[in-house]
Amino acid sequence: MTTAIYPGSFDPLTFGHVDIIERSARLFDHVIVSILTNSQKEPLFSVEERTEIMREILQPRFNNVEVEVFRGLLVDYARQKKAKVIVRGIRAVTDFEYEFQMALMNRRLNPDIETVFMMPAENYSYLSSRLVKEIAELGGSVAGLVPESVEKRLKQRFKKEK
Amino acid sequence: MTTAIYPGSFDPLTFGHVDIIERSARLFDHVIVSILTNSQKEPLFSVEERTEIMREILQPRFNNVEVEVFRGLLVDYARQKKAKVIVRGIRAVTDFEYEFQMALMNRRLNPDIETVFMMPAENYSYLSSRLVKEIAELGGSVAGLVPESVEKRLKQRFKKEK
Amino acid sequence: MTTAIYPGSFDPLTFGHVDIIERSARLFDHVIVSILTNSQKEPLFSVEERTEIMREILQPRFNNVEVEVFRGLLVDYARQKKAKVIVRGIRAVTDFEYEFQMALMNRRLNPDIETVFMMPAENYSYLSSRLVKEIAELGGSVAGLVPESVEKRLKQRFKKEK
Amino acid sequence: MTTAIYPGSFDPLTFGHVDIIERSARLFDHVIVSILTNSQKEPLFSVEERTEIMREILQPRFNNVEVEVFRGLLVDYARQKKAKVIVRGIRAVTDFEYEFQMALMNRRLNPDIETVFMMPAENYSYLSSRLVKEIAELGGSVAGLVPESVEKRLKQRFKKEK
Amino acid sequence: MTTAIYPGSFDPLTFGHVDIIERSARLFDHVIVSILTNSQKEPLFSVEERTEIMREILQPRFNNVEVEVFRGLLVDYARQKKAKVIVRGIRAVTDFEYEFQMALMNRRLNPDIETVFMMPAENYSYLSSRLVKEIAELGGSVAGLVPESVEKRLKQRFKKEK
Amino acid sequence: MTTAIYPGSFDPLTFGHVDIIERSARLFDHVIVSILTNSQKEPLFSVEERTEIMREILQPRFNNVEVEVFRGLLVDYARQKKAKVIVRGIRAVTDFEYEFQMALMNRRLNPDIETVFMMPAENYSYLSSRLVKEIAELGGSVAGLVPESVEKRLKQRFKKEK
Repeated sequence: MTTAIYPGSFDPLTFGHVDIIERSARLFDHVIVSILTNSQKEPLFSVEERTEIMREILQPRFNNVEVEVFRGLLVDYARQKKAKVIVRGIRAVTDFEYEFQMALMNRRLNPDIETVFMMPAENYSYLSSRLVKEIAELGGSVAGLVPESVEKRLKQRFKKEK
Repeated sequence: MTTAIYPGSFDPLTFGHVDIIERSARLFDHVIVSILTNSQKEPLFSVEERTEIMREILQPRFNNVEVEVFRGLLVDYARQKKAKVIVRGIRAVTDFEYEFQMALMNRRLNPDIETVFMMPAENYSYLSSRLVKEIAELGGSVAGLVPESVEKRLKQRFKKEK
Repeated sequence: MTTAIYPGSFDPLTFGHVDIIERSARLFDHVIVSILTNSQKEPLFSVEERTEIMREILQPRFNNVEVEVFRGLLVDYARQKKAKVIVRGIRAVTDFEYEFQMALMNRRLNPDIETVFMMPAENYSYLSSRLVKEIAELGGSVAGLVPESVEKRLKQRFKKEK
Repeated sequence: MTTAIYPGSFDPLTFGHVDIIERSARLFDHVIVSILTNSQKEPLFSVEERTEIMREILQPRFNNVEVEVFRGLLVDYARQKKAKVIVRGIRAVTDFEYEFQMALMNRRLNPDIETVFMMPAENYSYLSSRLVKEIAELGGSVAGLVPESVEKRLKQRFKKEK
Repeated sequence: MTTAIYPGSFDPLTFGHVDIIERSARLFDHVIVSILTNSQKEPLFSVEERTEIMREILQPRFNNVEVEVFRGLLVDYARQKKAKVIVRGIRAVTDFEYEFQMALMNRRLNPDIETVFMMPAENYSYLSSRLVKEIAELGGSVAGLVPESVEKRLKQRFKKEK
Repeated sequence: MTTAIYPGSFDPLTFGHVDIIERSARLFDHVIVSILTNSQKEPLFSVEERTEIMREILQPRFNNVEVEVFRGLLVDYARQKKAKVIVRGIRAVTDFEYEFQMALMNRRLNPDIETVFMMPAENYSYLSSRLVKEIAELGGSVAGLVPESVEKRLKQRFKKEK
């Protein structure tokens, strides 16, 4: 059985992420979507909120996908989960350079865990959580870019702030 | 009549920007240089100062160029201004990736507004507002990189800070 | 009146080309789609065939688009046509590097003619004439990638060769 | 059971290829290394020689790896082999752009087959069949870059030619 | 006599830096490793600590390498040191774009000083001070990535913080 | 004494090449400009003509620059010439990827020879021998792109061909 980890901040989950999760779920027996808790950056949604959102959306849809939170070194976490694969979505060259660097470093830290890169559908090629937040904050519509429940939460969040 | 918008932070205006404005003014009937007010970043020059500097430099030189300030979503602003085109200068690959992403997102938000990319003269290929500020702050000369009035204001600004 | 030239080999015309032509026709008063006759490469379709195909497809659809053949230096041709703009579609970084080099050289040969870059719709981001020919040659379907009349001609061409 | 296809020219097989095959064989149940017969390019080794070399080297080493020759469209071949995955090694940005284009086109031709990208070990990051042939032709040593039997054949081949 | 400057933050020194210093020391008569004091970013190690670490490691090993601290504009400092060359290590495309921009700007500020780019060994191609700090902070091992004395100091530093 | 090799096809020599040679001659004691004889490609100018052109232009101008022809493996040639350095000009990302690959391979073939990369002046950033030949063939002016004697020979060459 091959377990894959799909790590990320998911702040918030976009259809680009869902697309990669769907592709991973078709290729690997078990996929753990792992929410990285990075203490330094100020997230828009708390880890708890992100977990709740993602479980709500992903669990009814995929029966081999699990949502978890992790801290610490990704390769240690992967080993503990008996995962052989780290999945990363790539959209563009700049993405790729950074991803390449991380993947080579992770391989050095644990050569038993392989990173594979997958492409989202081309209509998500320009999509990122950062851009979604910017648009929502400026009052633009993010319909079609994120799941409906994320859309609602973004609206509430930026209403409150005003 | 084709109206084009050239959006940016212009903190401060460089000869690279002036070069792109000149090229746009030759191609399009009306060019609106739009100063983006991004509340998050701490600018060196206030929006008011930037507007003043730019009007002073651009209005005597181009009779189809206007300087404005805008808030909110670029595509909403463009629609309101009846602009068909967003102009962006591109200097290098990293530029290009980011610009590509923004242009595709803007197209999704409003398919009637087209982004076109133009190249500055090659002697401005390495020029950016950020670099100009760094050099001025360290006491280097920015003559030939920015208009004279910007040069003077940069000197005053960094004198005060010391 | 602004005349723009959209030069290329168009061997054969794809929906990616049509997309850029449509965008150009919205921005500029007059668009000349100029078929480059490069004596060195062996084309699949002759210049005459390409002209016929393109006139058939483009003329009923756009009233400010013309199809022409040209030889020689692009900037000389542009000057003769009183064109101010060369339009180029860009899909990816590798494209861009080459296009950037050509645009800077063309600017040096004639500084009065400006190159502007436009993006095709993202679902054409991977489309190229070369790829279309490869797929057609191997018997794959190119429906949705090229206009119907091109599709038919490709089928005939590769049937004959076998 | 997940079957993966690793397509290429393999003219000749390098340690970079072997590295990707090894990584694929750990992740997927069954890996078909598929030698692409491209009638246009003049190969150094015939398809028969390449098949022989590769079976000799790969079959004793991996029990879930098979070597095959294919003609025609990759996605048709993959469907026929009931493969869900196409594996591609990526070494650098230029690689990546081309691979991205092919992968998006293949996805369009058959959305059920997914392309995944894997990185070879960094000491193979500069290795290519083309470079190996150039070095061997100029009398340089390719030890450590290709399996021993390939090294021998390259020596014989370029001895004959002189 | 050719004096070269190798500028950087070195927060902390990695084996990638040492590799570039070694290559520079073979090519140039005198190499000044210059620690840039950037007042804006919060460093992990103070300038004094970095100087101490680097002198300890580099001075016994290279007899034509010196460690210094500098403030202000790099080209002014280089002129004062009678250096003809600025050495920069490059690992990847993103690196390269930024480096290219800096080098062109530095050339403009002082055309007598040349920037040369050198590649670290490929097994350091993914190594950066930032990544080293992240790994150390998360409790991962950085052995083989940085000199032993740096490793010890990183352990102490992140122990204290907890 | 540091000897540097600047290898290339120089078919023909451009001002971009002369620029890199000038920069190399300032940094290194002795520079050997080495004309690569690549038997596969059909050159415009024979090796003998290229040698003559380059000696005529370079020898009166630089007293530490020599022009030579070489065959075979670059690293073997460099060793024989007691050169420590290979100099390569880099203009753009695509250049860089290829150069990076060659430099890493050359390092593997002979770790004692270092490749350094230098940038030409930005007004030569788009210049290449290939482009110069194309323009001259189409009757365009290459004045300011190549030395006068090269310009004359290009004119004669393409006159003859017609």
